[in-house]
Amino acid sequence: MQLFFEPRSVVLIGVSRQSGPGTYNNLEMMARYGYQGRIYVVHPKVPEILGHKTYPRVADLPVTPDLAIISVGRDRVLPVFEECAQKGIRRVIVISQGFADADERGKELQRQLMEMAAKHGVRVVGPNTMGILNAFTGFSTAFVDTVRDPSPPPFSIIAQSGVFQVGYESFTGSIGKAIDVGNAGDVDFIDALEYLENDPQTRLIAIHMEGMRRGGELLKVAERIARKKPIIVLKTGRSAAGARAALSHTGSLVGEDSVFDAAFARAGIVRVRNMIELRAACRAFRHFRSLKGPRVGVVTATGACGIMTADACEDYGLELAPLPEKIREELELAHIAWHHLHNPVDLWPLGMVTGSFIEVFKRAVRGLIEDSGVDAVIGIGPALSSPLHADLDLIAAGRELNRSNPGHKPIALWLYGGDELAQERTLGPEPDLACFGSIDEAVMGLAAFLRYQKLQAEKESGESTFTPDAFPSGHSSHFPLVSPDGILVGEAAFEILKQYGIPQAPGKLAPDAESACAFAGEAGYPVVLKIISPQWLHKSDLGGIRLHITTELELRKAHGDLTELFRQQTPDGILEGILVQKEIQGTEILMGIKKDPQFGPILVVGMGGIYAEVFKDISRSLVPVTLADAERMLGSLHIFPILKGIRGQKGASLDKLAQTIVSLSRLALDYPEIGEMDLNPVLANAEGCWCVDCRILIDRGSGGSTL
Amino acid sequence: MQLFFEPRSVVLIGVSRQSGPGTYNNLEMMARYGYQGRIYVVHPKVPEILGHKTYPRVADLPVTPDLAIISVGRDRVLPVFEECAQKGIRRVIVISQGFADADERGKELQRQLMEMAAKHGVRVVGPNTMGILNAFTGFSTAFVDTVRDPSPPPFSIIAQSGVFQVGYESFTGSIGKAIDVGNAGDVDFIDALEYLENDPQTRLIAIHMEGMRRGGELLKVAERIARKKPIIVLKTGRSAAGARAALSHTGSLVGEDSVFDAAFARAGIVRVRNMIELRAACRAFRHFRSLKGPRVGVVTATGACGIMTADACEDYGLELAPLPEKIREELELAHIAWHHLHNPVDLWPLGMVTGSFIEVFKRAVRGLIEDSGVDAVIGIGPALSSPLHADLDLIAAGRELNRSNPGHKPIALWLYGGDELAQERTLGPEPDLACFGSIDEAVMGLAAFLRYQKLQAEKESGESTFTPDAFPSGHSSHFPLVSPDGILVGEAAFEILKQYGIPQAPGKLAPDAESACAFAGEAGYPVVLKIISPQWLHKSDLGGIRLHITTELELRKAHGDLTELFRQQTPDGILEGILVQKEIQGTEILMGIKKDPQFGPILVVGMGGIYAEVFKDISRSLVPVTLADAERMLGSLHIFPILKGIRGQKGASLDKLAQTIVSLSRLALDYPEIGEMDLNPVLANAEGCWCVDCRILIDRGSGGSTL
Repeated sequence: MQLFFEPRSVVLIGVSRQSGPGTYNNLEMMARYGYQGRIYVVHPKVPEILGHKTYPRVADLPVTPDLAIISVGRDRVLPVFEECAQKGIRRVIVISQGFADADERGKELQRQLMEMAAKHGVRVVGPNTMGILNAFTGFSTAFVDTVRDPSPPPFSIIAQSGVFQVGYESFTGSIGKAIDVGNAGDVDFIDALEYLENDPQTRLIAIHMEGMRRGGELLKVAERIARKKPIIVLKTGRSAAGARAALSHTGSLVGEDSVFDAAFARAGIVRVRNMIELRAACRAFRHFRSLKGPRVGVVTATGACGIMTADACEDYGLELAPLPEKIREELELAHIAWHHLHNPVDLWPLGMVTGSFIEVFKRAVRGLIEDSGVDAVIGIGPALSSPLHADLDLIAAGRELNRSNPGHKPIALWLYGGDELAQERTLGPEPDLACFGSIDEAVMGLAAFLRYQKLQAEKESGESTFTPDAFPSGHSSHFPLVSPDGILVGEAAFEILKQYGIPQAPGKLAPDAESACAFAGEAGYPVVLKIISPQWLHKSDLGGIRLHITTELELRKAHGDLTELFRQQTPDGILEGILVQKEIQGTEILMGIKKDPQFGPILVVGMGGIYAEVFKDISRSLVPVTLADAERMLGSLHIFPILKGIRGQKGASLDKLAQTIVSLSRLALDYPEIGEMDLNPVLANAEGCWCVDCRILIDRGSGGSTL
Repeated sequence: MQLFFEPRSVVLIGVSRQSGPGTYNNLEMMARYGYQGRIYVVHPKVPEILGHKTYPRVADLPVTPDLAIISVGRDRVLPVFEECAQKGIRRVIVISQGFADADERGKELQRQLMEMAAKHGVRVVGPNTMGILNAFTGFSTAFVDTVRDPSPPPFSIIAQSGVFQVGYESFTGSIGKAIDVGNAGDVDFIDALEYLENDPQTRLIAIHMEGMRRGGELLKVAERIARKKPIIVLKTGRSAAGARAALSHTGSLVGEDSVFDAAFARAGIVRVRNMIELRAACRAFRHFRSLKGPRVGVVTATGACGIMTADACEDYGLELAPLPEKIREELELAHIAWHHLHNPVDLWPLGMVTGSFIEVFKRAVRGLIEDSGVDAVIGIGPALSSPLHADLDLIAAGRELNRSNPGHKPIALWLYGGDELAQERTLGPEPDLACFGSIDEAVMGLAAFLRYQKLQAEKESGESTFTPDAFPSGHSSHFPLVSPDGILVGEAAFEILKQYGIPQAPGKLAPDAESACAFAGEAGYPVVLKIISPQWLHKSDLGGIRLHITTELELRKAHGDLTELFRQQTPDGILEGILVQKEIQGTEILMGIKKDPQFGPILVVGMGGIYAEVFKDISRSLVPVTLADAERMLGSLHIFPILKGIRGQKGASLDKLAQTIVSLSRLALDYPEIGEMDLNPVLANAEGCWCVDCRILIDRGSGGSTL
């Protein structure tokens, strides 16, 4: 990868013979950006472009350059690529569009291109890319005139678009290194991440992702890197409409969006929702080094902004710290009898009375930084261009405060009325201190940084892990699940649960009313009857369930009714039997497994019953799931208070639920051929939890785990 | 009010004798801002400040100025105010802090000040205010040096803080007129709105609100004005912590936040959540004139931004329009065989092939504007400072397109890499075309503007109205509700429901088991038993309910058990009886009324049962509620699909539910003494809905409606 970012020589093929405004000549841009290596140009017709002698063909080059940059029309890409390979060039960037991003023929061309690359041992970035940017060496392959940062930050971005190089001010702020992986035909997120992992000029990584392949592997690599270098990801195509656009744009596979949340959390990388949060997070991660908790102290020139900050903290999961007594004594009591300080600290009256807002600002921020109950400080004040307010230099004040900030507590400034980008430039690479574009961005940035700290803390405590090997199988020898139609229901499904100790409601598959009554007499009423048939997977929709059966008389009648109903509705169906089950009172929980093509089995737990699809109160996790993970999953549900027990009602056994989740995770690891599995409902009460219904769909295309 | 905004002469009392950097001298600021009227200065000690001769006392002034501006310490405000009144001054701005914004003594001082003002017929802005800004006449009372816009927009802001005048670039963009009502001791939102209503220099109004008084009246005034001039409101103190800060900051009353949502919607004014959305909405409302629906066409220089736009549209409730065939034919087929256009329209390949991105951009936007299936256009492209990209002037392109935009369809531009504020300045007051700071802000702005259009359309169609008189009472003569302890339960509560035709589950208050069995025998099993007692309002928490009673034997036993339970638990309680009710199967709905101190009765409908407090799936509305309002309330619930009927299950009778809501609204209007009323649950099924339990708390402090 290094030769992509630091080539000593490059050859450009497909350079326009025109240059100047409106021509997007990448040779011209490369020269302007400041590339210091040798540039060769291949052009079949003109002898010279922009002072560079051209060569008619790649074969004519006097040397073998480190890197070729191809921007010819898509139909000429393959022959040109072959020429490069023949010449011995081992790194190629294919800027040209019209491959997997376009039509069927484009897909085929890309396939052939990649085959050719593999054959010759050539690594390819693209096609459909803007390529590479390296502000440290002044190397850019962009066809757009990009401004080079003279002192680049240790921040790199991997994107699926060149727009993050062109419009960096709008997305992330200044960039040190960037790669647009484009269609990611060869070099993909994993390759780029592995390069940045050991790149001393990179300390922070942002990813713009529309889709991905090799999801499981990517997570492993990302998890390893994120322990050392934070990774922020903007995964777009969240919406249904967005996902459609993504498919046609890059030819990537876009999964169900919430699965990405689970996947990124598992890898310890921080997801942001949109470009506003991306910008805020990049700012925060760039400057901040440590954040121990969510308790924020706010110092503001105006009470109105204090209230807005409180609102933002609630929106993004931060908290207002109690005001340290020391600040109250120093500032309030000493100066204005009637002024009551609290957090947010509204300082203006004190500034007016003492004659120096800056002085009281510094004392208040100092007091907050020094207080053990405060994790971070947000400072709010005016940024006024008038010479009459030259005394209000809050950036200078922040810098002064920051000189004695041994705990590296983040100080986030929002200076209203000013130009945030200019403030950021003034600030430079100052650690622990940053300026944001709004109150909400300051809070978003801190919150994103806190999410990163929390994810990493979970990793370090060993609470969350990514190593399936650490989880002994619950099942000694793996027999593949088989079923003629790929569906397991009834006894067959319950049999699997039993192997993993997942409790089931006592029940019996009763071929006739006699055996049903015998079971109910033993287990006790009330009982439930259910039609068990591969044709009746959605049996409740079809009326195949009878509840609250309290007497033998009712039971006999219901058994007959259901059998008849089955015959009427599905004369050719296979009736495995009528299941008679003891009726359990409890909260309806849904558990399940769904295999994701990228990340393998996803374990799902949430609210069951009729409201399941209405509230979608669901927590998802990649497997394996530890007991701590399972508890976290349960704790994140909206219905958690009901499971814990509210309003004098007994809740459910959280221990039993968590154990069941862990068992299900083991099952998912052992049986990678499970495509989907529903335990719905699992009834949970104070005594335990019992699966009442289970179905398994076997994904017959899959032999092993995709992880 | 006009004299506050356009005084011909002012007197300043409390001016610092110092001027220059760091002194916050409001005389100096007023002169710099460009005030053209006469300025008088009262100062007891120095003969002259900044070239203005001073007068020792207000009484010494040679004339009676239109307006006095007081910024002395709080203890000197009252005597100075008295002097002003004696002099005949009828408008006073009290900038000084330390009144209701501070301690008890401050509250008392403010009360005395207002009493004095009323006695003398003086109108007061403040205390605790930055006062007035009028960029048209160059008048500002701020003690901060504010930049005057040479061509002010027809946009005014009413705030509870001066920060919106000082930091306007960060909040709303340029301002024509502003008033900081501060503690709103006298002049409040209503006064300010009524002035702006008839102000020809105001076409758009923004409000920053921490709390309010006279809520009902404010809504009436705002509703009237919003039909002509859009009103955007940033109501802060959304969070619990924020609300606490608000109370101590302005001494205003802050209500439960979601009630404000209902109130603002009722008044037809648009609420924004935070300063980012405020800025976006101000931008949109300033430029846009018409938006017929949510269907957006997106034209972008990069596919990545198209996907982000799709995400943002889903987040904020806009939709992607289908791509007009005409664009496909004109652009796609004519130029690149493999390029497949859809919406968002990714134009870059076409720009490269045709040699002019601007041309294809214009043709695509033109095609979208002209298509009847598109309501608004979002255009995305680079804003590059390089002379090599001088051809990419998208603002000029937008302006050109806008010349032929007869339907006034909004064109929202987001130009990455550029300075949004500079773009806005370049654009000037151009209608129908605006530049935004991010994709999300463009979408937020359009979405807020659409909310305004929808609210106004509902008003025009008469679907939503604010006139209680239009609703005939269901009750011919109003007898005040009475109860010795202020609580009505059981028969007494059901009696009220009956008067309004609100259906109840058939039931009978049974003093003994005999009468309970008689009722059940007639009405049919299963039945439910409930303890009815003012001491057992939360009877389900106490175990005072028995469900699923299917036989007379069970009924007798349960009746006895409950009676005994009551005696044990509350030996001194009043047992009105044991209610025996027919058990109805249906979805549990909660309905209720809660009187808000500002807005009068708030009608609530939502999910009932055990999950009610977990999911808080609730819709709120001010009364009166029309049938259309009631349907909208039901439609906004998450459980609406269940009420409509999902997965082959019968839903609930939406008609009966809506009728019941309207009846409850009438009841609320007729009985303003109701403080709280719970119908919980109302059981709804396909045949109808029935209230199963009802309790009423009488607010004995209130005799009439607060509306």
